[in-house]
Amino acid sequence: MLTFSLDNKSDEPMYHQIYSYVKEEILSGRLSCGEKLPSARELAGYLSVSRNPVDTAYEQLVAEGYVYALPKRGYFVNRITHTQQIHPAEHKEEGEEKGQENYRYDFDPDAVDVESFPYSVWQSIGRKALKDHSLFLAGDYRGDWELRRAVADYLYGSRGVLCQAANVVIGAGIGYLLQLLSVLFRHKKRIAFEEPGYVRAKKILASHGFEVCHIDVEGGGIGIEGLEASGAELCYVTPSHQFPLGTVMSIAKRQQLLQWAKEEEDRYIIEDDHDSEYRYKGRPIPALQSIDSEGKVIYIGTFSKAIAPALRMGYMVLPDQLLERFQECCGDYNCPVSRLDQAMMAEFIHGGYFEKHLNRMRKRYKEKHDTVLAVFRSYQDRIEVTGDYAGLYVIARSLRQREEEKVMQAAQKYEIRLRPLSFYYKELPEDYMPSFLIGFAGQTKEELKEGLRILCEKVF
Amino acid sequence: MLTFSLDNKSDEPMYHQIYSYVKEEILSGRLSCGEKLPSARELAGYLSVSRNPVDTAYEQLVAEGYVYALPKRGYFVNRITHTQQIHPAEHKEEGEEKGQENYRYDFDPDAVDVESFPYSVWQSIGRKALKDHSLFLAGDYRGDWELRRAVADYLYGSRGVLCQAANVVIGAGIGYLLQLLSVLFRHKKRIAFEEPGYVRAKKILASHGFEVCHIDVEGGGIGIEGLEASGAELCYVTPSHQFPLGTVMSIAKRQQLLQWAKEEEDRYIIEDDHDSEYRYKGRPIPALQSIDSEGKVIYIGTFSKAIAPALRMGYMVLPDQLLERFQECCGDYNCPVSRLDQAMMAEFIHGGYFEKHLNRMRKRYKEKHDTVLAVFRSYQDRIEVTGDYAGLYVIARSLRQREEEKVMQAAQKYEIRLRPLSFYYKELPEDYMPSFLIGFAGQTKEELKEGLRILCEKVF
Repeated sequence: MLTFSLDNKSDEPMYHQIYSYVKEEILSGRLSCGEKLPSARELAGYLSVSRNPVDTAYEQLVAEGYVYALPKRGYFVNRITHTQQIHPAEHKEEGEEKGQENYRYDFDPDAVDVESFPYSVWQSIGRKALKDHSLFLAGDYRGDWELRRAVADYLYGSRGVLCQAANVVIGAGIGYLLQLLSVLFRHKKRIAFEEPGYVRAKKILASHGFEVCHIDVEGGGIGIEGLEASGAELCYVTPSHQFPLGTVMSIAKRQQLLQWAKEEEDRYIIEDDHDSEYRYKGRPIPALQSIDSEGKVIYIGTFSKAIAPALRMGYMVLPDQLLERFQECCGDYNCPVSRLDQAMMAEFIHGGYFEKHLNRMRKRYKEKHDTVLAVFRSYQDRIEVTGDYAGLYVIARSLRQREEEKVMQAAQKYEIRLRPLSFYYKELPEDYMPSFLIGFAGQTKEELKEGLRILCEKVF
Repeated sequence: MLTFSLDNKSDEPMYHQIYSYVKEEILSGRLSCGEKLPSARELAGYLSVSRNPVDTAYEQLVAEGYVYALPKRGYFVNRITHTQQIHPAEHKEEGEEKGQENYRYDFDPDAVDVESFPYSVWQSIGRKALKDHSLFLAGDYRGDWELRRAVADYLYGSRGVLCQAANVVIGAGIGYLLQLLSVLFRHKKRIAFEEPGYVRAKKILASHGFEVCHIDVEGGGIGIEGLEASGAELCYVTPSHQFPLGTVMSIAKRQQLLQWAKEEEDRYIIEDDHDSEYRYKGRPIPALQSIDSEGKVIYIGTFSKAIAPALRMGYMVLPDQLLERFQECCGDYNCPVSRLDQAMMAEFIHGGYFEKHLNRMRKRYKEKHDTVLAVFRSYQDRIEVTGDYAGLYVIARSLRQREEEKVMQAAQKYEIRLRPLSFYYKELPEDYMPSFLIGFAGQTKEELKEGLRILCEKVF
């Protein structure tokens, strides 16, 4: 008989505690192939819980292939093969693979520090919002007014973005906003991207039929000659913190870029201001949009880095002359963000909590960032660091290892997650040296120190 | 000086109480054009609150044009013109226009009864979920496993839908899921729709470059001959409760439809099962997907009617043979639903709350539905009711009035919101009589009785 006790105080749903325990028993071999499990009724009685969680747990185990059911006979332990354990479609942990349990040291550049989020504040805001039942009625397709107002205020104050609530559109992350833009610009067929650049955005726009032109980054930003020559009508850039190189686009280049857009009535610039909240040296770089007098810039950002990617909340700022067309093209696309979440975020911003949170995170991230630089400094002979003082990652260039693949293999050996810079290139430059994005947000300073030492000594 | 007191216990944010009060004062004329408002500091001191809410309120008033600011001099009341008051982009109430404050009797067919939602349960589930900080890390692009598992269980149990969690994709409402499908089927160019049919879905697919064919509904479902002739490869249907006519597709037609799909390898049927949760007579109609042995049906549904549209949560069930293509085409589209909301909904379903909620709502809606039929029955000479015993609206056909426009005008006169059936037609049939969707979910039985009497006696 299975002998274990449920933790009623745990946040883990009961069915999931049962599921996890039985699965553990099977993986550890304590329950062996062909063995019969107690019937759902027996186990429920034994644990003195309702049938419901036990049934759910068993169904899940069957669905994942740990257990098989025989009509009228019951549940039996399956023969476990590796593939069954990690079958992506059915494996519950999949969503968390980006987390840290698979790697001892995870330098995932997309990670954020979720421990420091003011959960209690969020909760009490949520409790209040939940009392406003009107939030369960359908809302504005562009997002609710309060949140758009709050985002407009925040962007003006922190990024110099010139806009009214009327210009703001709330969406679910940059990917979703790009889907809207691909509908808005359906008649356009060519979009210029920075090379190296944001791969996901390229893929999404390509999947909507856009022809993507790759324009080399030179002097901290997209090459203007290349852009002129490309024949593109749209241009996707990351001026405040080039992704992935981490450089800042000079004011001269910004003006050239705006000039390019002005030359044709229907040219537009998409400014992806991904992690501009975090800058650890000097004053913040104003958004390109803030110096755009002709309404040529579509500004895009998300709360993914500022708060957490799982929030699925982003925003874009459309110039006035696009508002009408947007209504025509996208007026039937309901805002994908729940109104409850919108109301909570609006209050989080208007209540001043967001700013407090950003200030606290800036301090924490700066400490982590400085830790990374400090460690790397003592290995200057083998590693060169660039793209620093902003964002949630630095770029480490290996000066000794010439083969990126070798570095990746060594990293694997020491259970270190690394993201190679080459991932973001369509074609590698000839002078390319193995380089890696070192994300520092998701780890503690101690983990960082330890992991970086191993990285520098054993891997690079 | 402005004299009013803030309600600290109110759910309404402080800045909004101030905003609303001042706006009221201006609209009512108690504050007249050119009058100077107290400085933010004065008002904050007078109300003994921090500057922040007062500033926000003033900014909002300026943004909406009620107030203008003069540098170094302060805030002054603006000249109010009607356009400023209802400028959609800046008017806060816009999102709630679908609500009931603009109409005395609102028969909006999209409305739901949000008063009966178990807010306290939802809140305690949310409090628990908020403790799982891993929910703030990025999740599965198809939605998190628990919710997909929960949806699969629910659809199998309640709708006979045959699927695993692996077949389920979580999205933000049907509109979003259709965007994914338009990427998945980019190479297809023609989709058949029921005439009359779901206008928003048509518009969304058209905005992605699909050619929409309108196939007349005959005998309770889409005309098969018309479908065969259309040359479409995709077909969008509402078999359980034709939208808007409310008829049920016969089993014979269902088989013909599946046969049509089988004839070509790349033909697929999109089954929109919009409000199938609610049936007030006889047994529930199984989904078309439940009798599809060849994986030709893509099943789509949302929680918009079952719980509330503002939740922005929907799901689709893909046949196995489309899973790989889906990963290729849509693998870069992150799930738009916050993981917190996903976890809450999963627990809401697994904990048995969803089923309880549906049962309670079924009772409530049946009472409202029966009330509507009862009132109409006493006006049989002028109104014919169809599409009843399911969903959240009935269709009332006026037997006396021959001009729909006249009926609409009369309804306006009595502050009644009506949605004409003609809205859903591309071309009106010759024998069309003025008909209207009478949504009953959003009103109390008393409101329904009163509104319907006026409707029958004064309008129809």
